[in-house]
Amino acid sequence: MKMNTIHRRGSLLLLTVLAAAAVNAQTGEAFGKAVTNTNITAEEVEAAQKAWGAALIQISSDYKAGGFTKAKATAESVLDLAYGYNIGPVLFKPTLTSGNQVFRTTRQGALAYFVGGDKEFPTDTGFALKGWEKYEFKNAAVFISGDMAITMGNVMLTDASGKVTTVDKTWGFKKDDKGNLRIVLHHSSLPYNP
Amino acid sequence: MKMNTIHRRGSLLLLTVLAAAAVNAQTGEAFGKAVTNTNITAEEVEAAQKAWGAALIQISSDYKAGGFTKAKATAESVLDLAYGYNIGPVLFKPTLTSGNQVFRTTRQGALAYFVGGDKEFPTDTGFALKGWEKYEFKNAAVFISGDMAITMGNVMLTDASGKVTTVDKTWGFKKDDKGNLRIVLHHSSLPYNP
Amino acid sequence: MKMNTIHRRGSLLLLTVLAAAAVNAQTGEAFGKAVTNTNITAEEVEAAQKAWGAALIQISSDYKAGGFTKAKATAESVLDLAYGYNIGPVLFKPTLTSGNQVFRTTRQGALAYFVGGDKEFPTDTGFALKGWEKYEFKNAAVFISGDMAITMGNVMLTDASGKVTTVDKTWGFKKDDKGNLRIVLHHSSLPYNP
Amino acid sequence: MKMNTIHRRGSLLLLTVLAAAAVNAQTGEAFGKAVTNTNITAEEVEAAQKAWGAALIQISSDYKAGGFTKAKATAESVLDLAYGYNIGPVLFKPTLTSGNQVFRTTRQGALAYFVGGDKEFPTDTGFALKGWEKYEFKNAAVFISGDMAITMGNVMLTDASGKVTTVDKTWGFKKDDKGNLRIVLHHSSLPYNP
Repeated sequence: MKMNTIHRRGSLLLLTVLAAAAVNAQTGEAFGKAVTNTNITAEEVEAAQKAWGAALIQISSDYKAGGFTKAKATAESVLDLAYGYNIGPVLFKPTLTSGNQVFRTTRQGALAYFVGGDKEFPTDTGFALKGWEKYEFKNAAVFISGDMAITMGNVMLTDASGKVTTVDKTWGFKKDDKGNLRIVLHHSSLPYNP
Repeated sequence: MKMNTIHRRGSLLLLTVLAAAAVNAQTGEAFGKAVTNTNITAEEVEAAQKAWGAALIQISSDYKAGGFTKAKATAESVLDLAYGYNIGPVLFKPTLTSGNQVFRTTRQGALAYFVGGDKEFPTDTGFALKGWEKYEFKNAAVFISGDMAITMGNVMLTDASGKVTTVDKTWGFKKDDKGNLRIVLHHSSLPYNP
Repeated sequence: MKMNTIHRRGSLLLLTVLAAAAVNAQTGEAFGKAVTNTNITAEEVEAAQKAWGAALIQISSDYKAGGFTKAKATAESVLDLAYGYNIGPVLFKPTLTSGNQVFRTTRQGALAYFVGGDKEFPTDTGFALKGWEKYEFKNAAVFISGDMAITMGNVMLTDASGKVTTVDKTWGFKKDDKGNLRIVLHHSSLPYNP
Repeated sequence: MKMNTIHRRGSLLLLTVLAAAAVNAQTGEAFGKAVTNTNITAEEVEAAQKAWGAALIQISSDYKAGGFTKAKATAESVLDLAYGYNIGPVLFKPTLTSGNQVFRTTRQGALAYFVGGDKEFPTDTGFALKGWEKYEFKNAAVFISGDMAITMGNVMLTDASGKVTTVDKTWGFKKDDKGNLRIVLHHSSLPYNP
């Protein structure tokens, strides 16, 4: 398994990273230029996985630099560009949700999880605000079918104190008409501790 | 959300249940009989989810009636009929795996989890042997695209003592050429406890 | 095989017909309202086939009522709403093209075929301007896979004099993110005469 | 547009050619060996198009060497290996069919077209028996979506006398569970002659 790492950089530009993930490979090279191909490639999946981590670090960085307002605006951009709430309910089970608010199938619920500050989700403290500085992921396996791809593996997040949090993570991506991969499935869970 | 329940029945026939799940809907009614349709339907997804629980109860029941050998044979049938190990590595994160054996992308790893008794997976004690008698599931959301479907929600399992275990569960199904739905993704995790 | 017929009506509103074809069935009823389904249904295919004929009759009708300018504007709307030139080259082999301009993979080539008047396509006389008043189609077979559907069968067009033209017709439809079916394949040919 | 040519060779082995077309690319290289990918590639499409011509020439060659019985056996192998009659009705409109037998949605109808000799299809004289020696194809455009691909372009067939027959050809391929591409759509027509 290849290890993928993204470090915080002072000049990290979120939109650049997301744009890099939005590889529009709809027109291929074979048969001249006359091939239209709507499928996801493994490279696009990897780019989308990198973009997710970069976005999380960006929100943390923006929170430090510009406070809640700036972090929330960035989180909203991430949700609108990289998640599939524009398609339908997203199958999202974040790491730290509980009770009757485990599943965050709406954009509002996802935003509350990432930045908190929503009275309707009173236990949310803002997962993306916790000063994340480094992101790594390892895929155990990937399944690609048409414009859908599913990944399963580990994600390792490092905060400012150097503490590493490891989670078991499943993502499902769907490529939209513009060639962007959108997260339609996100199941994250803490490792089982026997 | 609709609640789906399956109780243990003395005469439960596993193959019947799995066969019921294997709805081959490749030829539709519209336009006479001339429509071929390879897509998954919501009804097939629900049938496959029911079949998973029925299979788990069956393994428990077979263990009680026929011991390890019988339970293992049943578990192998379930893996061969309802999982996608014949397609490639399955994205399987069982509820109770840990350490460097969290992901069970091989048939051997999945079998070890369900019935134990494999020296290469020394911490596995056989999840399906724990006397499960009742199974319920609630979907939070379902995403269908082509011959793929993803579900996310809760599964509630009741053992002989009446104790209920609830897990957060994601499944990914792929419909094969014969019309059978196969599990290519299975992420199960205990609820987060703040 | 069911026969489908569309007659010219004085008040035929093209956009209404196309809108009716644009059935957005992305959110189903099963499991409550939580199912997202991106697949094409047989009903959507039939609606799109009806819409194609209605659009052709509309262009003929507009040509009679408003001349070339009106007919061309309608044809452009049809191409932009019902064909996939926004996705990539369309696999379009019209009934009456020949020489080195058989395939109309560009929007310009398709528009020239339907309404003529383009010096770059000098043999085109405007297929849609020929006073079509009635449209029928019969599918021999339909194949549906994911967000793609292919149909093959006969199309019968009747002009003002009552003369019927029958063609062998293949269509390929792709459902876009908004739920609209777009023609990405269109092969039309006159019957072989031994 | 690239031109693809296949000449008759004395030692042409049909099954070798078909096997070459049956590229099973389900497990990719990215992320180690853990990627399962069920999609069609442009290379697989091109290989399947080559295999079709090689098979046609093989039937002609077998007819010359072994008569009707041998040619028919080869044609049956081609239909069973390279067409999708095992999936459902195939959308097949051969070049030279007419009347109420234009569409050959059944295996029997396709076999009759290729080798003749079937009383139920009295006008069929065996298209594949006509001494084809050379095959070329040019794609005008290709559309790939999931495990489906559609091609449109020209096919040029040369017989023993050197006469070239050109047809307008559309193919639809579906990749099956074993990684083989199967023809589920085949629309062939003589060029329109104004």
